[in-house]
Amino acid sequence: MKTKTEKKTEPTIIIVFGGTGDLSKRKLIPAFYNLFLDGWMPDKLAIYGLGRSEMDNESFQIKLFDGLSEFSRSGVPEPESWEKFKKNLNYLPSNINDQKSYKELLNEIEELEEEWGQRANRLYYLSVAPKFIETVCRNLKSFKLVDDQNKDRIIIEKPFGYDKDSAISLNKMLQELFDEDQIFRIDHYLGKETVQNILAFRFANTLFEPLWNRNYIDYIQITVAEDVGIGDRGGYYEGAGALRDMIQNHLLQILCMIAMEPPVTFEAEEIRNRKVDVLKAIRRIPIEEVHNYAVRGQYASGWIKGKEVLGYRDENDTNRHSQTETFAAIKFYIDNWRWQDVPVYLRTGKRMQEKTSSINIQFRPVPHMTFPTSHSDNLTPNRLTINIQPHMDIKLRFMTKKTGLEMNLNSSEMIFNYDSCSTQSPEAYETLLLDAMLGDTTLFMRSDQVEEAWDVLSTIQQAWEKGGEDFPNYVAGSWGPEKAEALIARQGHFWTMDIKKNDKQK
Amino acid sequence: MKTKTEKKTEPTIIIVFGGTGDLSKRKLIPAFYNLFLDGWMPDKLAIYGLGRSEMDNESFQIKLFDGLSEFSRSGVPEPESWEKFKKNLNYLPSNINDQKSYKELLNEIEELEEEWGQRANRLYYLSVAPKFIETVCRNLKSFKLVDDQNKDRIIIEKPFGYDKDSAISLNKMLQELFDEDQIFRIDHYLGKETVQNILAFRFANTLFEPLWNRNYIDYIQITVAEDVGIGDRGGYYEGAGALRDMIQNHLLQILCMIAMEPPVTFEAEEIRNRKVDVLKAIRRIPIEEVHNYAVRGQYASGWIKGKEVLGYRDENDTNRHSQTETFAAIKFYIDNWRWQDVPVYLRTGKRMQEKTSSINIQFRPVPHMTFPTSHSDNLTPNRLTINIQPHMDIKLRFMTKKTGLEMNLNSSEMIFNYDSCSTQSPEAYETLLLDAMLGDTTLFMRSDQVEEAWDVLSTIQQAWEKGGEDFPNYVAGSWGPEKAEALIARQGHFWTMDIKKNDKQK
Repeated sequence: MKTKTEKKTEPTIIIVFGGTGDLSKRKLIPAFYNLFLDGWMPDKLAIYGLGRSEMDNESFQIKLFDGLSEFSRSGVPEPESWEKFKKNLNYLPSNINDQKSYKELLNEIEELEEEWGQRANRLYYLSVAPKFIETVCRNLKSFKLVDDQNKDRIIIEKPFGYDKDSAISLNKMLQELFDEDQIFRIDHYLGKETVQNILAFRFANTLFEPLWNRNYIDYIQITVAEDVGIGDRGGYYEGAGALRDMIQNHLLQILCMIAMEPPVTFEAEEIRNRKVDVLKAIRRIPIEEVHNYAVRGQYASGWIKGKEVLGYRDENDTNRHSQTETFAAIKFYIDNWRWQDVPVYLRTGKRMQEKTSSINIQFRPVPHMTFPTSHSDNLTPNRLTINIQPHMDIKLRFMTKKTGLEMNLNSSEMIFNYDSCSTQSPEAYETLLLDAMLGDTTLFMRSDQVEEAWDVLSTIQQAWEKGGEDFPNYVAGSWGPEKAEALIARQGHFWTMDIKKNDKQK
Repeated sequence: MKTKTEKKTEPTIIIVFGGTGDLSKRKLIPAFYNLFLDGWMPDKLAIYGLGRSEMDNESFQIKLFDGLSEFSRSGVPEPESWEKFKKNLNYLPSNINDQKSYKELLNEIEELEEEWGQRANRLYYLSVAPKFIETVCRNLKSFKLVDDQNKDRIIIEKPFGYDKDSAISLNKMLQELFDEDQIFRIDHYLGKETVQNILAFRFANTLFEPLWNRNYIDYIQITVAEDVGIGDRGGYYEGAGALRDMIQNHLLQILCMIAMEPPVTFEAEEIRNRKVDVLKAIRRIPIEEVHNYAVRGQYASGWIKGKEVLGYRDENDTNRHSQTETFAAIKFYIDNWRWQDVPVYLRTGKRMQEKTSSINIQFRPVPHMTFPTSHSDNLTPNRLTINIQPHMDIKLRFMTKKTGLEMNLNSSEMIFNYDSCSTQSPEAYETLLLDAMLGDTTLFMRSDQVEEAWDVLSTIQQAWEKGGEDFPNYVAGSWGPEKAEALIARQGHFWTMDIKKNDKQK
């Protein structure tokens, strides 16, 4: 298997639909720029931003320079590098619904390819509202902007549909137009260093895999908590909710990486097969049982870090009587040999007390306690915490002898910390965009993964669509509705809070 | 089970034979003083130093004050505490071979007990040359200084004999005079925090025990390296050597804690039973095979940390043609279900490059490598390192994803560090002396442990007594003779050096 460094970077034209949007400014262009700085970009490179506004190249470049200065991990661009990079940046005013725009795009591309003397790989990033995806794709096809004889690829952002049926339709449309290996369904969580590291951690070490099953693991928790509200995205969010916005993609994808069987090889299809196996094995919750497995919430106004914030129903573009959930907590079981009877708790919410994404693997207690209870009051079972953001670390909680003259036990931690190297660490989008350019689909979602993920959630969606929840039911700045505590307390479990300060380790 | 804090501290008289010696000054009195400071000592307390010199109490106290100032972890004593403590310190000029001295000691003790209005527990510390042990013990018995109706105890320092037969004789003599639970054979290594923690680490955690066997562990290494030479102890060392001085006690005891089966309860007899099980299971090396399992060395002159040092044969009180080993490395196997075929390497030496005591548990490589070899050049199997001294920490080496755009693997470490709390951490002697005062034999060696440990080594002793090694065979400041490398290299193993600096963790 060739390393990425060994792969020849071929002439590439990148086309961003929604090139003047927020994602482009904050994530995509900074990612392309950093790939450029780090020498991953081909010599023959062009990036086209497409948008409705009238703008010349220079204004576009200035806009992106400001975005880079504010959002790039490499900070304000060095003049020399920027001069070199900006030559590749072009703006094309464009109307998604107008065929003329596609024709113009094709002309631009073909002119450039003629100048280069060779056909380039064309990478289309569809940073557009879901309703435009089909129009763009059909036009890309009919104008031969994408050619399946060549290495042209399309990157699509979530949401991939809004339920199982719509996802199937979307996939059908995409697969009718393109080969599956041209379609890159992006979930930026999969590009994060800490998430990618789950596979290395599990499968490059002898230590953990023998313990990674129902014999030793008591339960698993995955939390993706945000302290922000929905901001300006009320229009989108009102029709989405936490289940569609977070659980269907980020949280279920992380769960797949935690729960999957060892892949034989580190190849895209193999890894995607093992991940979809997990989704298939997740026990479907009968619709009449949903209330025992899933809890939803919507935030009321409250205080976060000394600032008063609005309730969801008072945010822009939301419904005064909205039944949209901004919080979801679900208990899953995985029906296979490895995980039978091990509860997996997923939880996500907006306007939570803190921004944190973390995975907690809670091990069972020791089978027999050698030490007298008088010496082990604070005995706690082992726990492995993988912090994804904002802290990037792995913590192993274990018991040690408390320093002193008696054999008293004490909970301690071993820590592996990424934070110190975090400035060098590439952003998720860099990883994923480079992979897409090189045609590596490992970290992207295949159609069946998307559909299975929707299938897992479909009874919950159906149950929740009926409404009936007394929203709002949690205060901004809390950890969600009380029912979420009760959901897992019924089994004697509790949501794990990572101890932020650990004096012993400093 | 009562905690030590709950146990009533009873009136105690401590008698140190060899009270003016080095051990007394450096270790025993500082330990008693720190126990006193920390409130572990009974109100009714007297400490008697016995020695040949003529000295009054005050001179003795001054001598000990100087010792405390230099060697106690608590530093120069505070005047107020010292005033209180020194009232308990008495000196008694004494001749081990003269019955009059024992009579005088008895008078002193009985007077004090009369004054207190009750009989005290008497704790005798025999910090004397091995040849005097029998004389002292017989006199303690015949003068009824030790009474088996009461809680009188005797602490004996290693060496416990010089081979199996002499150890059996010594034990026979001791057991004829005293109950086994009055006899405290001290091995200060067992009082060390990091050594005691081995039991907590193994048996208070679910994580490690399932991996702690031949299925997952490739080999085990225990190293106790000293950078010092034999100093003024040539007279003793010439008749001892590394095997008797270190392997028979410290290293085999550590091995027992690493290899023992889980004890049902944390009680002295149970733990000592499990430890002696290990010694019994160690495969005896046939005398004609010793050269394939054991390597010895003796240091030549050399350089340590920029200072030239003498060779062993040029030290004070050693023989010019000495065949005494100052280095020993041995490969053992443990014939039981848990450890069959797992080599256990013990190594100890004087004048080594660095002072370090550590245990390395080397795990097997992953059974199947998911990641392509091009991405995992520096793949190393997991390793657990327990550093006993001078660093006190536990390190877990494992593979992670190297930060960057490719899935490359990197060796990383999780660290649990005791060092930060090391000033609060009691010295080994504090732990052990308090245990002896409370009658807790858990961390002391029972007669059968001592005898089995000698039995394990007896063919090596016999083979080495024949001489025939070309000494000196290693340079001071090295890691011992080349043969020690070859000993384990034959199995594809190597002596593990702990990486002192780990930038990732700082």
